[in-house]
Amino acid sequence: MGDRVQEILSWYGSDNAGTKTNIARMLRSGKLAGTGKLVILPVDQGFEHGPARSFAPNPSGYNPHYHFQLAIDAGCNAYAAPLGFLEAGASEFAGQIPLILKLNNHDVLHDDKDPLPSVTGSVNDALRLGCSAVGFTIYPGSAHCNAMYEQLQAIAEEAKAGGLAVVVWSYPRGSALSKEGETAMDVVAYAAQIAAQLGAHIIKVKLPTAHLEQAAAKKVYESTQIPIKTLAERVKHVVQSSFDGRRIVIFSGGAKSEDKNVFEEARGIRDGGGFGSIIGRNSFQRPKAEAIKFLQTIMGIYGGAIQ
Amino acid sequence: MGDRVQEILSWYGSDNAGTKTNIARMLRSGKLAGTGKLVILPVDQGFEHGPARSFAPNPSGYNPHYHFQLAIDAGCNAYAAPLGFLEAGASEFAGQIPLILKLNNHDVLHDDKDPLPSVTGSVNDALRLGCSAVGFTIYPGSAHCNAMYEQLQAIAEEAKAGGLAVVVWSYPRGSALSKEGETAMDVVAYAAQIAAQLGAHIIKVKLPTAHLEQAAAKKVYESTQIPIKTLAERVKHVVQSSFDGRRIVIFSGGAKSEDKNVFEEARGIRDGGGFGSIIGRNSFQRPKAEAIKFLQTIMGIYGGAIQ
Amino acid sequence: MGDRVQEILSWYGSDNAGTKTNIARMLRSGKLAGTGKLVILPVDQGFEHGPARSFAPNPSGYNPHYHFQLAIDAGCNAYAAPLGFLEAGASEFAGQIPLILKLNNHDVLHDDKDPLPSVTGSVNDALRLGCSAVGFTIYPGSAHCNAMYEQLQAIAEEAKAGGLAVVVWSYPRGSALSKEGETAMDVVAYAAQIAAQLGAHIIKVKLPTAHLEQAAAKKVYESTQIPIKTLAERVKHVVQSSFDGRRIVIFSGGAKSEDKNVFEEARGIRDGGGFGSIIGRNSFQRPKAEAIKFLQTIMGIYGGAIQ
Amino acid sequence: MGDRVQEILSWYGSDNAGTKTNIARMLRSGKLAGTGKLVILPVDQGFEHGPARSFAPNPSGYNPHYHFQLAIDAGCNAYAAPLGFLEAGASEFAGQIPLILKLNNHDVLHDDKDPLPSVTGSVNDALRLGCSAVGFTIYPGSAHCNAMYEQLQAIAEEAKAGGLAVVVWSYPRGSALSKEGETAMDVVAYAAQIAAQLGAHIIKVKLPTAHLEQAAAKKVYESTQIPIKTLAERVKHVVQSSFDGRRIVIFSGGAKSEDKNVFEEARGIRDGGGFGSIIGRNSFQRPKAEAIKFLQTIMGIYGGAIQ
Amino acid sequence: MGDRVQEILSWYGSDNAGTKTNIARMLRSGKLAGTGKLVILPVDQGFEHGPARSFAPNPSGYNPHYHFQLAIDAGCNAYAAPLGFLEAGASEFAGQIPLILKLNNHDVLHDDKDPLPSVTGSVNDALRLGCSAVGFTIYPGSAHCNAMYEQLQAIAEEAKAGGLAVVVWSYPRGSALSKEGETAMDVVAYAAQIAAQLGAHIIKVKLPTAHLEQAAAKKVYESTQIPIKTLAERVKHVVQSSFDGRRIVIFSGGAKSEDKNVFEEARGIRDGGGFGSIIGRNSFQRPKAEAIKFLQTIMGIYGGAIQ
Repeated sequence: MGDRVQEILSWYGSDNAGTKTNIARMLRSGKLAGTGKLVILPVDQGFEHGPARSFAPNPSGYNPHYHFQLAIDAGCNAYAAPLGFLEAGASEFAGQIPLILKLNNHDVLHDDKDPLPSVTGSVNDALRLGCSAVGFTIYPGSAHCNAMYEQLQAIAEEAKAGGLAVVVWSYPRGSALSKEGETAMDVVAYAAQIAAQLGAHIIKVKLPTAHLEQAAAKKVYESTQIPIKTLAERVKHVVQSSFDGRRIVIFSGGAKSEDKNVFEEARGIRDGGGFGSIIGRNSFQRPKAEAIKFLQTIMGIYGGAIQ
Repeated sequence: MGDRVQEILSWYGSDNAGTKTNIARMLRSGKLAGTGKLVILPVDQGFEHGPARSFAPNPSGYNPHYHFQLAIDAGCNAYAAPLGFLEAGASEFAGQIPLILKLNNHDVLHDDKDPLPSVTGSVNDALRLGCSAVGFTIYPGSAHCNAMYEQLQAIAEEAKAGGLAVVVWSYPRGSALSKEGETAMDVVAYAAQIAAQLGAHIIKVKLPTAHLEQAAAKKVYESTQIPIKTLAERVKHVVQSSFDGRRIVIFSGGAKSEDKNVFEEARGIRDGGGFGSIIGRNSFQRPKAEAIKFLQTIMGIYGGAIQ
Repeated sequence: MGDRVQEILSWYGSDNAGTKTNIARMLRSGKLAGTGKLVILPVDQGFEHGPARSFAPNPSGYNPHYHFQLAIDAGCNAYAAPLGFLEAGASEFAGQIPLILKLNNHDVLHDDKDPLPSVTGSVNDALRLGCSAVGFTIYPGSAHCNAMYEQLQAIAEEAKAGGLAVVVWSYPRGSALSKEGETAMDVVAYAAQIAAQLGAHIIKVKLPTAHLEQAAAKKVYESTQIPIKTLAERVKHVVQSSFDGRRIVIFSGGAKSEDKNVFEEARGIRDGGGFGSIIGRNSFQRPKAEAIKFLQTIMGIYGGAIQ
Repeated sequence: MGDRVQEILSWYGSDNAGTKTNIARMLRSGKLAGTGKLVILPVDQGFEHGPARSFAPNPSGYNPHYHFQLAIDAGCNAYAAPLGFLEAGASEFAGQIPLILKLNNHDVLHDDKDPLPSVTGSVNDALRLGCSAVGFTIYPGSAHCNAMYEQLQAIAEEAKAGGLAVVVWSYPRGSALSKEGETAMDVVAYAAQIAAQLGAHIIKVKLPTAHLEQAAAKKVYESTQIPIKTLAERVKHVVQSSFDGRRIVIFSGGAKSEDKNVFEEARGIRDGGGFGSIIGRNSFQRPKAEAIKFLQTIMGIYGGAIQ
Repeated sequence: MGDRVQEILSWYGSDNAGTKTNIARMLRSGKLAGTGKLVILPVDQGFEHGPARSFAPNPSGYNPHYHFQLAIDAGCNAYAAPLGFLEAGASEFAGQIPLILKLNNHDVLHDDKDPLPSVTGSVNDALRLGCSAVGFTIYPGSAHCNAMYEQLQAIAEEAKAGGLAVVVWSYPRGSALSKEGETAMDVVAYAAQIAAQLGAHIIKVKLPTAHLEQAAAKKVYESTQIPIKTLAERVKHVVQSSFDGRRIVIFSGGAKSEDKNVFEEARGIRDGGGFGSIIGRNSFQRPKAEAIKFLQTIMGIYGGAIQ
């Protein structure tokens, strides 16, 4: 199984040994160690949606230690969170699971059609906390995309020099896109490509629908008959759009949903050649035992134990 | 009692010994030393509201030395003020009380619906003045919140590297919030969470009302039946929203009010598990002897001597 | 008389020996040396109003050397000017009079309701020109006050580290203030307080009228019966608002006026406990001999030789 | 043939040996080595137009290695791409072809009348990836041209100090220009001049039409009878406008077009004294064997083997 | 004649030996060496107006070497141009004529009522190219004047530390000024004063008319009866407004004009005590032999050989 990790690492030939080591750490941790698949636990909803909306359904989640332990016990490959949450446990759980410091965040106490998150941590913070990677969100389609791309450029350059991996959340959003367009096939594939071109090692996008948003793109999808009917086909196209599969692409779970839907999505990701999932609310908003079972079912789907 | 301080320090495992030392200095100073409770004297109203509105009711307050001495004589844990006020006494009172340099300020000679304070001092200023902490105000909900969060990010990173503690005043305000919403339960809890996620060691918020401002939050408060009827319940929820009590949260006194109300609030803070108060106008706008008695009553409530 | 200088220096306990030395240099220069009083010659009108409006009434003033010599011959404590004017004479007059490099300036070739001066020199410029202090103008009340306060913060920090004194011109102005409000009692006192809180060693404000601009302040002035009827009372209140007299506050002369008015104002400043005057147009826009006589009359009023 | 390269290098007398070496590397690579002519493969369309519009017509192009190999196999002088695409192959193809790191990019998920690309890489990135040059796009005519010119100034200064060459894409665009004006004779010549004055070593512009956009320029073109009727004449005028031929100017191919048109354009470029072409979509959007034949036909036209 | 140069250098007492050396280099070069007069060739029109409008009337001017040679052959004191033009010849003509690197430029492919040029080079560029001075344009009266003044402040500080001279083009322009006001007597004198106060060693302004633009200034010009009827009087007033003649002030030629007018203007500049001319289009837009004769006539007027 180590061969698959070595194969993946071979795609990152421009990176230094430190960054390769940290990508490998994530790929060799947890239940999916060595499979080339990833299930990551992200917990930034306290910042993004507020504490009650995030943690009241399972109040253990107010405690930052809970999420470290949940990610470890479930066998996730990594745990991602903003500065405060990582500072609150990085020493206690040192070395038990790879950490991803989320370097920008956004709250909903005010509204923006064209969102611009705040930079809330630094590469130095990631290094002093023993993280394996930094995480950064871009909103392609936002009128502020320049600011985000340039913040990411600076952070990625510094992170790579410091031997860290760079994980990019690429979520199309902004006044130029329809609501449906945010998860349109062409738009999600484009968002993955942008993240890859900006130098991301790991790309996180939402699962796309079959909708096509931009007229110029639609024409090409139709004329070249890109298959996008099934979820697996769409995942495959996103993976293709991420340097023909030479970048790790994982998919986000979105709002809490019925388990069978999530499992079905995991099968689609697996069948389309996706590298895994990043699942927040669906895991930490239920009792821990249930969450572990839920996450391990998904890992089973990725790992092959479950069909 | 030292055990309680050690317990609190254990929550800050990511911080260096310098920062832990400075948090401990505040927790081991004054009448409440060792209890884990804090009463802090803040005097930034000269900048925020003007000198006459702040000091005319008790003209001794025009003199910066007055406040140092008041905080010392009353047995406060720390004294917080802007650059000028601290420069005017830091040598004379060196080592007599922990100091918090307030690093941003705002005046009312012009109006803004979406306020953005000015950065008025630096981490280096705090170090050269012998401070234990820097203080910084954020206004979640302001259209300028990005600027404040990013200023705080840079200051907090530098302060922590310099062995200082970071105290964040988190006051929701801005065109997207109703007046009532500024102290709404959901909004205050969210503001505390944001400060915690931004890496604050000590969080200062206003006492919340039972009002719920944001529809998406309201739904969750109601469906999960978070108890917020009494002040103690609301304080408890704020403490929970601050990493389940693993961050120090103190509450501000607000405008001058009848003493019995303030004492009643202190009881609510105590019963809800709050860590104390930061009390400005209610203390320095009355004669010194009265102020000391007033502050020591509050300390008595926190320390257990007074019910 | 040296005792008075020592007393004043004792208020600046947070400053390094270099800054104290430079404050002392200004207090120990000229005719008022040792009295604790200051008369400073400022010449930035060439930049602020244009050369003809400034110097045509006394064309000697076009020459930068004229002002150095005038300040020296009249026995001023210091001479303040923008970069160009100081560069044009700092070597020739080296060591003959303390210099204040004015670090921001504004011209009237375009209009702004909310003015923002340009930064036109640096702390390094002040050091290489042998200055004792930097000068900086803030316009509290301007929509751009944030920019000015933050520029001042950076300059003051650097100046203090370099052993220089910081002189702040604090002139309320901007779209939120009425014309009358710019010199209102409450507003001028507030402007002095802001400068002091920002870390100014020497504060320059305009002489206030008895007008009260802001409703919330007015209520306090009336309820606490702050005496502001006479000029001396108003000066006293400004001095009180500057850390209860623990910061040097001087008053500007304004446009050219009848001598007896200026002298009357000087008496008011003296009687109210003000520290002196900064007088530009009233001195350099008349023949030199007259100007010296004029300035020395004012010095006489401050020094006690003239009632 | 080496003499032509030496002659061209002699125009860059202000550059250090490192930069001259890198210009020489591009001029001495591929089929046109030593002729002073250049055919460069640029692949930034994945970022600029999205992956499907760019690569669906020839899906091999999703893979970053494809373009390295295509440029090498066809005998191009250099390969230009954004950060992600170069990172994904720079080690594997190290030393096989000179690389140009495109340092700014723009996507079409939102609309701007006055475009401003994002800076997506750095000079340090170019150095660590073994590139010979950095590439940068400016849009003269955009309301944001100041930002682009100043970004280029900083990048060019740093690149030259680091021994890299600077390639500038100069594409007039913005609300002040008509659509036709973007390729007008006067406008393209002006764009070439601006790039040259900003210090570009190699300038890339679009082929101009005979249209004249700006009235003041039109008058001069007519009164001085500048010949601009044929494509060769227009190319000659662009070359003249680039320091009388003392800067390398190459022309872009634009959207996919019929081959005979592209070859005809190459003849015009050759006859007008242009230095070559930069051809993206016309080469990588067809099967590799065809693309090589296509590119080598163009090289034949430039090299003299084909009329 | 050396005495005059020494006298002029004595006005720059605050500058280091490097800057004095470079001012001296310009004053001791060319036909006017040692007279204290200057004729400078500036060629930035390729950037400012486009190549055809600039060079089509005399196509030799497309070649950057042409202007170096013209300035040398005509005996100019210095040659001023943007980065690209200087890079294209600084090695070939090293040491043959003092160079001024123009550090900001503006093109006309888009319109601004309130222009803000782009910074297009650096002090380091000037040093590596062997220049004697940097040049910088400010537009007093523009809404963007703050940006320009502050860019100049930073550049001037760095240039002086690096031993370079600072030449400021001060051209009033912007929405607050009438077209006639741009060359009004009061406005041009004010512009010269601003440049001087910002620390310019050499100031370049346009020749003023007798128009008075600003009401407050007009009143003073009339009440103090400043003589401004003849060109010589107006030049004299500009020189007076430039620190009473203690700064070098030269005048620009403007658009191409009849020779006798230009010579008449030179006589006015000479008779008013101006220090010379900076003449672009009138010299390089005619055949070289004519240009040399033309420039040497002007030099003759300044040097005394021609009345």
